[in-house]
Amino acid sequence: MNQDVKYIFLQSALTLENPYMDIPQFFNWLNKKKAATHHQITQIPFKQLQNWEFQKSTGNLIHSSGKFFSIEGIEVKTNWGNVNEWTQPIINQPEVGFLGIITKKINGILYFLMQAKIEPGNINAVQISPTLQATKSNYTQVHKGNPPNYLEYFLSKRKDVNILVDQLQSEQGARFFKKRNRNIIIEVTSDIEVKEEFCWLTLGQIKELLTYDNIINMDTRTVISGIAFGNTQIEISNNNSYEKGLLISELDIHHSLHSIEDIISWITKLKSFAELEVNKIPLNEIKHWEKDEMSIHHEQGKYFSVIAVNAEIGNREVARWTQPIVKSAQEGIIAFIIKKINGVYHFLVQAKMESGNFDIIELAPTVQCLTGNYRKGMNEYEVDFIDVVLEPEKHNATIRYSTFQSEEGGRFYEEQNKNMIIEVGEDFNNGLPEKYIWMTLNQIKTFIKFNNYLNIQSRSLLAAVKFI
Amino acid sequence: MNQDVKYIFLQSALTLENPYMDIPQFFNWLNKKKAATHHQITQIPFKQLQNWEFQKSTGNLIHSSGKFFSIEGIEVKTNWGNVNEWTQPIINQPEVGFLGIITKKINGILYFLMQAKIEPGNINAVQISPTLQATKSNYTQVHKGNPPNYLEYFLSKRKDVNILVDQLQSEQGARFFKKRNRNIIIEVTSDIEVKEEFCWLTLGQIKELLTYDNIINMDTRTVISGIAFGNTQIEISNNNSYEKGLLISELDIHHSLHSIEDIISWITKLKSFAELEVNKIPLNEIKHWEKDEMSIHHEQGKYFSVIAVNAEIGNREVARWTQPIVKSAQEGIIAFIIKKINGVYHFLVQAKMESGNFDIIELAPTVQCLTGNYRKGMNEYEVDFIDVVLEPEKHNATIRYSTFQSEEGGRFYEEQNKNMIIEVGEDFNNGLPEKYIWMTLNQIKTFIKFNNYLNIQSRSLLAAVKFI
Repeated sequence: MNQDVKYIFLQSALTLENPYMDIPQFFNWLNKKKAATHHQITQIPFKQLQNWEFQKSTGNLIHSSGKFFSIEGIEVKTNWGNVNEWTQPIINQPEVGFLGIITKKINGILYFLMQAKIEPGNINAVQISPTLQATKSNYTQVHKGNPPNYLEYFLSKRKDVNILVDQLQSEQGARFFKKRNRNIIIEVTSDIEVKEEFCWLTLGQIKELLTYDNIINMDTRTVISGIAFGNTQIEISNNNSYEKGLLISELDIHHSLHSIEDIISWITKLKSFAELEVNKIPLNEIKHWEKDEMSIHHEQGKYFSVIAVNAEIGNREVARWTQPIVKSAQEGIIAFIIKKINGVYHFLVQAKMESGNFDIIELAPTVQCLTGNYRKGMNEYEVDFIDVVLEPEKHNATIRYSTFQSEEGGRFYEEQNKNMIIEVGEDFNNGLPEKYIWMTLNQIKTFIKFNNYLNIQSRSLLAAVKFI
Repeated sequence: MNQDVKYIFLQSALTLENPYMDIPQFFNWLNKKKAATHHQITQIPFKQLQNWEFQKSTGNLIHSSGKFFSIEGIEVKTNWGNVNEWTQPIINQPEVGFLGIITKKINGILYFLMQAKIEPGNINAVQISPTLQATKSNYTQVHKGNPPNYLEYFLSKRKDVNILVDQLQSEQGARFFKKRNRNIIIEVTSDIEVKEEFCWLTLGQIKELLTYDNIINMDTRTVISGIAFGNTQIEISNNNSYEKGLLISELDIHHSLHSIEDIISWITKLKSFAELEVNKIPLNEIKHWEKDEMSIHHEQGKYFSVIAVNAEIGNREVARWTQPIVKSAQEGIIAFIIKKINGVYHFLVQAKMESGNFDIIELAPTVQCLTGNYRKGMNEYEVDFIDVVLEPEKHNATIRYSTFQSEEGGRFYEEQNKNMIIEVGEDFNNGLPEKYIWMTLNQIKTFIKFNNYLNIQSRSLLAAVKFI
């Protein structure tokens, strides 16, 4: 990706005007899609699942083809944090899927080809997804259906395709066992048909739509979070000092509190002392979890449960199937605390260990928890900085961003998290627990480029950072 | 690490003059150490191992403390390459060890505090190691001996210590199960005692000593390979056009064939399609390997064997112990092919899958194999580019570097590999197999900074790149 690509991404991020579809037209279009959509999801007993079964020897919940995903057990041992040993169910889906967006330069501006996509677990039935969202099972045709739309642009080398972003990024470490997807943005230079459920949006519009609840799906958020604007030189005309400040944090490489090497050293030290041993175990051997006809759930109702649903979904044609799906015990909060240091916004990043992490710890938002996790004295641990997030006014802090955003609706049932960015004053607490560090946006984007540094929750929040 | 640190590293790399110890004095000192050293290593039957045993249920070879390391089995399934399924023994040593070098600025030049260290598997008995080489068992005192020299400088935050390089780097993926060490270079600003077995060397001297066989040990090589000189501006006075060319490749950020993002995309694609499933199995369940009283070896004598040795080692005090150790079937070759592209040297990097890799593939030298692996028609696969390495003159190629360097003597028995850098002409073959890509030194050093990109064999070769 050369400097030109960074510039054209930035230009698209700074563009709200779209002659093909402005924001009111978008909502009009989306509402029509929703109205035309059949979306009926019903919880069913496990025994009504078709092509899914609990394997006799292990109790694992598997698909009869051996493909898609399975629900298995893991046993975790760690010296990190207060809880040093537990077992839990986890989603095992070892294949790397595609999350791909097609872009095209039209009159000099880069447009993103976005899809109105229905998923069983979606709040609002329809959310805006990347052009292509495909598991390996999808594109190798285990479904025996039609190949996904636009798949051909991603599969092989073509003269009319330039790759702009192409990264392997992690999924939820507490729910998935080392799952990663290929996050890819390509530019198509030839004419391309805009199919029924698709539309062109600028990056600025996508970010604008992230100020609304549950419109832009998780897959879109993770893909666009990988866009880095480098240290592109532009004139910053925005008068909003907060948005202007974010843009400076994204482009500036000279005023960070720590160097990249200092941050790598901080990560190295944490990873060196952290011990994490995760072993797969049969699902029927996990402790403190119960299984009944309708769900697999924690004995105290904590964390999440695995349920089964019957899904009837479609617009013109209605598809019907059954599948297991994960249901969160409560909503969660994910929040970045930000602060101006040396005149540049820094994000307070947390090193977080999650059982399904590919490499022990990943960089997470300042706060990432279910609401059930921060009731004082009622849990195994306290959540650092939760007070600032729950009662910002008491900490001289300003809420800069606050929306509800959904988890991926193919695996998670109506799960939403409060996404927040909260600015604190320059007098804010300088002695940090050793698991926290201040980073500029430019530095975070440098780490995102490489494998498995930023977790999906932090990427979701970073996707929402807007400059207009 | 700020620009000053990069500059002072580079300055040390360009310095051969050392008033404390020049190269002849060094060899004099080293020979004295060798002469004063008792180093008697004898192969013994497994049953004479003390504190080591074959676990009854699994056949795994373990230490009675449960610490140090163990020899276990793994079962590998992959879609990478021609051999898609096998079992093998592997060293399991899950702890992260320290490989640490203390440096000190003396009269403006950075000196490295190096150790003459005896290891059982060392060719020449004594090799030059980092200041500190310690497993977690070492520094948490499972040995119940004295703490390693200088450990205190590395363990906790001190006012007189600056961290210059601090990276988590991988060990041999074909021999170790996901083993990593913390590679760290610190600068000490207070006075520091130079103990009996230690000496100060410049980085340039260490690189000069890498032109000799088996003087600088593997641990030193991996630590110094992590030093990046960034795009430091200096006047290049060297008249040797090859060495000058390497320095340009190290410092230049404008003339690479591919961008960093292009290279990340290439890695992402390979990792996305590569499938690697590695499961630990009991050592007594591996196939095509035989165990007798003296060794665990492949039925055709390929790859490596596990043997037991009695070690008597020491200078003033002689320690005696027994341990398992890995013995290679033959010597190996590791070689980088380099070529001037756009006037800047590029290294031909291979994406290599090895069973113990932390993340499926790592970046390896152009050629990395045992000599037993390239006898045409006698193996499962052909080694790409091996002809150029074996018969450079037939390919209009020049040998720029060729020495024997040792593997780590604590785990590997007198194992040495031929380390080569071979320059090809500009007309050299431009159509590469998809597992190969050209990178500048500056780009390679960028990837080294982040976890698990460059494998230990490539780092060993990069350590030897010298500019004077």
